[in-house]
Amino acid sequence: MDTRKRQLALQRSALAHLPRHGMAVGARPTLEARTAPPNPACVPGAGQFCRHPLVDAALNAALLAYEQTVRGRFEAIEDVLRSLSARQHDRDFVEQAQALARQRLDTEWPLSLLEHAWVAGVDMAALQAHALFATIERCVRLADQDRAPWMDRLPVQAADLRACGIHTLDVSPCADGRLQGLLPFVLRTAPSEAVAVKAYAGALFDVELDVAEWTQRELERLSGALPGAEGADYLKVAVYHFSSSHPQHEGCAAHGSHDARAVVAAIERLHALREAVNNTYGEGAAPLVMLLGVDTDLDALRVHLPDACGRLHADRFLDAATLYRETLGMSADAAHRHIETAVVAHVQDLGGVLTRQPGDEGLARLAQRWITANLSQIEYVIQHHAGRYAVIGHDEHFICVGDALPSLQLRNQYYHAHLDTVEEGAADLDVGVKIFTALNLRRGLALPMLVHFTYSSRVPGARQRAIERGHRVVAAIRARYAHWDERGRLHARVAVSDRYGRERVAFVDEAVAAPAGH
Amino acid sequence: MDTRKRQLALQRSALAHLPRHGMAVGARPTLEARTAPPNPACVPGAGQFCRHPLVDAALNAALLAYEQTVRGRFEAIEDVLRSLSARQHDRDFVEQAQALARQRLDTEWPLSLLEHAWVAGVDMAALQAHALFATIERCVRLADQDRAPWMDRLPVQAADLRACGIHTLDVSPCADGRLQGLLPFVLRTAPSEAVAVKAYAGALFDVELDVAEWTQRELERLSGALPGAEGADYLKVAVYHFSSSHPQHEGCAAHGSHDARAVVAAIERLHALREAVNNTYGEGAAPLVMLLGVDTDLDALRVHLPDACGRLHADRFLDAATLYRETLGMSADAAHRHIETAVVAHVQDLGGVLTRQPGDEGLARLAQRWITANLSQIEYVIQHHAGRYAVIGHDEHFICVGDALPSLQLRNQYYHAHLDTVEEGAADLDVGVKIFTALNLRRGLALPMLVHFTYSSRVPGARQRAIERGHRVVAAIRARYAHWDERGRLHARVAVSDRYGRERVAFVDEAVAAPAGH
Repeated sequence: MDTRKRQLALQRSALAHLPRHGMAVGARPTLEARTAPPNPACVPGAGQFCRHPLVDAALNAALLAYEQTVRGRFEAIEDVLRSLSARQHDRDFVEQAQALARQRLDTEWPLSLLEHAWVAGVDMAALQAHALFATIERCVRLADQDRAPWMDRLPVQAADLRACGIHTLDVSPCADGRLQGLLPFVLRTAPSEAVAVKAYAGALFDVELDVAEWTQRELERLSGALPGAEGADYLKVAVYHFSSSHPQHEGCAAHGSHDARAVVAAIERLHALREAVNNTYGEGAAPLVMLLGVDTDLDALRVHLPDACGRLHADRFLDAATLYRETLGMSADAAHRHIETAVVAHVQDLGGVLTRQPGDEGLARLAQRWITANLSQIEYVIQHHAGRYAVIGHDEHFICVGDALPSLQLRNQYYHAHLDTVEEGAADLDVGVKIFTALNLRRGLALPMLVHFTYSSRVPGARQRAIERGHRVVAAIRARYAHWDERGRLHARVAVSDRYGRERVAFVDEAVAAPAGH
Repeated sequence: MDTRKRQLALQRSALAHLPRHGMAVGARPTLEARTAPPNPACVPGAGQFCRHPLVDAALNAALLAYEQTVRGRFEAIEDVLRSLSARQHDRDFVEQAQALARQRLDTEWPLSLLEHAWVAGVDMAALQAHALFATIERCVRLADQDRAPWMDRLPVQAADLRACGIHTLDVSPCADGRLQGLLPFVLRTAPSEAVAVKAYAGALFDVELDVAEWTQRELERLSGALPGAEGADYLKVAVYHFSSSHPQHEGCAAHGSHDARAVVAAIERLHALREAVNNTYGEGAAPLVMLLGVDTDLDALRVHLPDACGRLHADRFLDAATLYRETLGMSADAAHRHIETAVVAHVQDLGGVLTRQPGDEGLARLAQRWITANLSQIEYVIQHHAGRYAVIGHDEHFICVGDALPSLQLRNQYYHAHLDTVEEGAADLDVGVKIFTALNLRRGLALPMLVHFTYSSRVPGARQRAIERGHRVVAAIRARYAHWDERGRLHARVAVSDRYGRERVAFVDEAVAAPAGH
């Protein structure tokens, strides 16, 4: 944790001279942060214990251990780099460096990065990038083992989604790193083949792409390729975020930290998706939709249910922090009933909720599950992060470009720009590079980009095309950020995953990946 | 026709010094062209009349009138430009120029392009581009009227496709301009909602995109949005091309004019598409496939039918030119029977043909229809183009980037690069720019690009996103071909069409199209 504190202090000084123009870029644990409002769910020590009857304490302990393990691996990198810095002119530097890397990072440095250190010093950015990619690879390799203690204990599994009438959950959070732990932590929802995450700056997902993905799943359902999905629905969820500590500065950068604007824009896309499918495949074909909001300082959830006509309302939602506070002293049963009553009242207030079959309020049941699950995350932040995250701003370690990383989902671990081409996704990438300018580049460190694409092993040639796409995107990134590339600060690697799990974030050697000529 | 001859002479001299490296770029009606082999279907004047009993002479006459009308509009441009050149320093140049434009091109010049001509001469490339876009707009506006005399007379209408068990025809020819008249001329097939054309250099279509498009149509079929499509199939066709006059030089540039390589590559993609769909949606789900080949000197067709297992064979095909020759002296009935027998024998040789329902050989029927229809086109070239096109190489007027133009389909009218982003489609575009370097740029004329995207009016916001995509692609084109852009020679316009026909190739004003802020 020492490293962590040093890092924060360093960021603070690095960020102090940045202009403040309403765009939330760069971690800013400044004075105001320390005078932030108390956690609205519960203030520990203020006459309350903050031990909610519906919280799964054992699950929280397992998730904490996981968070510390994964964060520890990434935080060790800067610590090791600082040690190397102090020793780079020693005669036995190479041996020391390799020993440190083996002990602390479970990797080795390429000799070319070390052997000339005695002449001109080491290239810190290159070492940092090498260690980062090695750590990502290690986390993916160990993911099953690391997550085993909590994976099956998460209260929302694929079977639970099915029980709420959902065969596919398609989630578009903001690209912001603070939302990258959304599924396992905030929603306590297990990753599975039924769950897809596509992050976009401002949660402004691609309607045409989503129509295509809905179409694919719908045809899989109709052709029997999704066993048990008869009568079940596709659910599209958009997730906006805001900061209760610094609403004007640490909200969503893509919407200029203007929360109301973020909500309206997300609702507009969700309505457009429904209209597109209804207009194309007939009234009633549209997927279900839901809007979620996350206070990224507290990981507290807001749930906007669609009314009976499928319309979402910006100002009508269920608030998990409020429900936590209201049910804190109750028995588990009473708390359950209280939440259920709140959901039922909300649905009545909306005049009913969107369903395929009348009377089957699967979405309301899912809202209740997610709110109940989120109580554990609210308490997690209260107990393990002092009621409010210490770093309420950006603190990502790398940028993930392309498809999501289901095996590595943790708050502020990476900024995620879902894209197929830089040409289409440039605006999302620019926000990420701006964040890393503050976090890393101004300090002389790297701009690390993992370019990751998922392919279907059922489609001949798809793996090779995914690799070619990766290299094409890297080339476009190098052209767009030539300023950093020319200084040797832009470090990009390509990795591919099979949609059906046979290969997971496999790093691709540049030499192997040259597009085949005809 | 005078203009045409002058143009050819000019091209000949402009192209004479080009390197010959097996890439077919630039029109080359050189000496060898005049010693080209005789038309294998029939040599007029060699004791034969070349009047085949199955040819629709009235349809040919109507198509010839159409071809001459449309080509005349485009060829008038250069003629007008040459007149303007001679008068650009006259005192009444502006009036003369406008009068010529109104009379010959049905347009007016922007005053800014004329009023300073007396100082430094006119910008010929800018005038050419303006006239080209105006002519495209005029051809689209008049398309229904221009095509009325032959549209309903084409022997392969959507209903005929249905009669062969096909609800959707998805054709990927090469991007090469010589294939852009494929549907109405070579295949005598009417454009309709059931027909999609996506051209790629080398006919190397995008398997992932095609899986997505198959999925969409299949779901439309299952949800009843394609009336009458029950029991019918999706047919994917790839179209390679070759040159019987200059096999080594005027074949497919993307495959280095290596015909065998072009065939193998197209077969590989078609097999991959079938495998992808079968693997994803269950054995038997895959679309039907067919491979066509076109001798671009003669517009003569080759049909490769898939065998009973859906496999295509590079060296087994039906050859329309041979069948024309074999049936030339026969009665219509006898010719019909002969062709039918040839198709049946070919199917037997293959051991059956791919079908959904056993015994229903829809593809064989379609092959017979297309071969019979192609006899008319073979005779069209014999009679109206002296047995072999005068310009066997490239002679396009502009580059169409993005989606096809169903209302303007004519041989060598434009080079078509189907793409969503320049990042993905750069290789196809580069081939197009290379062609126009020879055709226009070396002569000081323009590099005219029509960036055209089709949207679905059933998807809210899709039109605006199509416009934004168009402007994004134009920006990427300007960056990639900065050399020509900086010289004022790159002229690009954006147009959009509604997939459901409410708007057709509507040019978009740059000012209107600025992406909306949030």
